[in-house]
Amino acid sequence: MRLIADNLRITRKTIEIAMAEKNPLPLQAMAKQCQLAGADGIDINSGPLYRDPESRMVFMVEAVQEVTRLPLILDTSNPKALKAGLLACNAPATLNGLSMEPSKLENILPLAAAYRTDVICYLLYPNGHVPPDSTERLNIAVSLYQKCLEAGVEPDRVIIDPVVVPLSWQDGLFQAREVLTVIKTLQELLGFPVRTIAGLSNLTAGARDSTKKHLAEQTYLPMLAASGLSMILMNVLNAESIRVARTCRLFSQESIFTWEMIG
Amino acid sequence: MRLIADNLRITRKTIEIAMAEKNPLPLQAMAKQCQLAGADGIDINSGPLYRDPESRMVFMVEAVQEVTRLPLILDTSNPKALKAGLLACNAPATLNGLSMEPSKLENILPLAAAYRTDVICYLLYPNGHVPPDSTERLNIAVSLYQKCLEAGVEPDRVIIDPVVVPLSWQDGLFQAREVLTVIKTLQELLGFPVRTIAGLSNLTAGARDSTKKHLAEQTYLPMLAASGLSMILMNVLNAESIRVARTCRLFSQESIFTWEMIG
Repeated sequence: MRLIADNLRITRKTIEIAMAEKNPLPLQAMAKQCQLAGADGIDINSGPLYRDPESRMVFMVEAVQEVTRLPLILDTSNPKALKAGLLACNAPATLNGLSMEPSKLENILPLAAAYRTDVICYLLYPNGHVPPDSTERLNIAVSLYQKCLEAGVEPDRVIIDPVVVPLSWQDGLFQAREVLTVIKTLQELLGFPVRTIAGLSNLTAGARDSTKKHLAEQTYLPMLAASGLSMILMNVLNAESIRVARTCRLFSQESIFTWEMIG
Repeated sequence: MRLIADNLRITRKTIEIAMAEKNPLPLQAMAKQCQLAGADGIDINSGPLYRDPESRMVFMVEAVQEVTRLPLILDTSNPKALKAGLLACNAPATLNGLSMEPSKLENILPLAAAYRTDVICYLLYPNGHVPPDSTERLNIAVSLYQKCLEAGVEPDRVIIDPVVVPLSWQDGLFQAREVLTVIKTLQELLGFPVRTIAGLSNLTAGARDSTKKHLAEQTYLPMLAASGLSMILMNVLNAESIRVARTCRLFSQESIFTWEMIG
């Protein structure tokens, strides 16, 4: 399981201000911290970038890759920003992300095919709504995977995100279980060892009780890992969660490690 | 996932002394604490009971069931003690346990069949050694399950223990992964939704660093749950582990619960 930092996001005040001031330092400080914490990649969540999408995404990408060689994930619904970001990246980047929403199939899928990038595919309805259960998610996975192949995206470029929802939703716990089922079932269903990703922070979005929040995250994370999750998108600067994530990795990685590495 | 207390064991000093003095109070205090902590069952680990096996097992069973109606698991290699314990139990008990060891097949298997009890089956070699990987464990599972059926034990009476070993073993982490694989694969292999159990305390047996120990237990426990484990044998008086175990249950149980129950 690879650990992807979700810390570089525009909804974070320091990042928002840095973007407004075109000041790369806070972005770079954050990127360096994520690398130090053990991230295997960084998600650059720029938001939709209604104004100047190209120059602002390029600013973020350039700022970050000045201080780290970690792979980048470009996270925006704006296809202009995605394209500009891809061109600015020194190394192959991942597009985040595609779904059955018509605007995304139209604008993001061709980008993924043309630039031969990895692409994260959300199991959402065409109207952007979250499916109620695993069956619906798996149906969408089949359709979306097919769309990718038809567009010329290679199977090993596809990364599926089954969409973790907040536990505070009325059916939050049920949805959390269904996500595990999707991760366990996908590869057999698609007949390909497709990679998967999930956003851990979503699980406790809106939760105030930090003890409960940690308990939920630290329990669900190993369950995702044991279900076969390939990549976890998470706050890598949460010391407790990162310790659990690293331990999950020891328990699920193929090569043998000694017990001394835990901690 | 049901939570089985492993706290009532003769290797614990207070229990050992209580047994020697035939004083039921410490056993009863422990049993009540386990019930309060949320245990779904209690494992009575009497050791081999070389002297007076019958009367000493009966003493333990009677002491415990005076204060709790939780299902009991009789945990000894001594078939005389098992038989006496079974007869002393007010409610159906579980035998712990069977393996391919000839003495157990000869003495414990007929008991399970004659008394129609649940029986825990360890995936060990006939000489009692731990198999090196999941393939060997699965081979043993097939043989042992077959032996049970041939002896007249019904499939839903069989509970398989894939044998968690200490992480401190040279191949400890590898073995931990292999145990997860066994739990995930067993049902399909046997063609029956066979139940499984694992002993969590074994994982960190001998470990001194308590931070590491907790981290390992609290990460592995949800991984066991997500792999489909039916019962976890654990120290239910460890407040942190029990919180994680309860949260696992919320994440893996079929019925819907609200987020408020976590904690």
